[in-house]
Amino acid sequence: MKPPSPVAALVLRILTLISISISFIVLITNTTTLSSDYGKVKLHFKDVYSYRYMVFTLVVGFAYTLLQIAFTIYQVCMGKRLSSGDGLYQFDFYGDKVISYVLATGVGAAFGATIDLKEASSGANKFFNKGSAAASLLLLAFLFTAVSSVFSSLALPKKI
Amino acid sequence: MKPPSPVAALVLRILTLISISISFIVLITNTTTLSSDYGKVKLHFKDVYSYRYMVFTLVVGFAYTLLQIAFTIYQVCMGKRLSSGDGLYQFDFYGDKVISYVLATGVGAAFGATIDLKEASSGANKFFNKGSAAASLLLLAFLFTAVSSVFSSLALPKKI
Repeated sequence: MKPPSPVAALVLRILTLISISISFIVLITNTTTLSSDYGKVKLHFKDVYSYRYMVFTLVVGFAYTLLQIAFTIYQVCMGKRLSSGDGLYQFDFYGDKVISYVLATGVGAAFGATIDLKEASSGANKFFNKGSAAASLLLLAFLFTAVSSVFSSLALPKKI
Repeated sequence: MKPPSPVAALVLRILTLISISISFIVLITNTTTLSSDYGKVKLHFKDVYSYRYMVFTLVVGFAYTLLQIAFTIYQVCMGKRLSSGDGLYQFDFYGDKVISYVLATGVGAAFGATIDLKEASSGANKFFNKGSAAASLLLLAFLFTAVSSVFSSLALPKKI
């Protein structure tokens, strides 16, 4: 397998950014009102620790992917990379590795909490279904970043 | 950063296997009895979906790490790899990548469910504290595998 062209790499990053953005919007707009014996309780993503962690991973993933898109656009337009040394290849390699791991733990936390809390609570099905949708989009973003990570690993050797 | 010697790689794999094994033992021996209005209820890892997934990731991680230990012992003893082609380097590269991602999602699910369910349930603190201990050991195994994955990525180029 060979590293893709800069344009293909750019498309992959843009797909990642879109998945992250939609996941974020679905997650933070997700609220529901539960009726209990003590009155009504509003449920928000902040009430679930795993969803808070998910927001953290989405924000980190968004910032990193945006930076990579800027770098790749420069490369596509100028026909060369921003820096001529090995630094940028090393940055891609370690950056993709770390960010894809962060997203992977976010995927685990998001699905884990969604499935177990849905089981434990009643009346919040809709809330957790939306949580599940956001988790699926995060999974997609993780898979895109994992593919980018394979590419940046394969691109590394040529320059060292 | 350069790939480590086969002996250092072997030590890393053995540490991974130890972490996975202890995590597994802590997780599957973890039970507690809860008193409710309807009598006593026994809580086991099987009752938490995230813990079931955690067992899956531990079993997959154990099998893969054991295989890698066998390969590395062969390499240390014989002074060469089992296969002379590129196949084994490719296997290390993709294997480490996939397994470390599987473990990362396991870490996320384990911590996510532990923290959120501990908050939602009362009287099962001890059960979730043990779950947290198992999750920490899985985190350790994931970190070891992530380091192995960096090494197998760096080792790849020389052979292609």
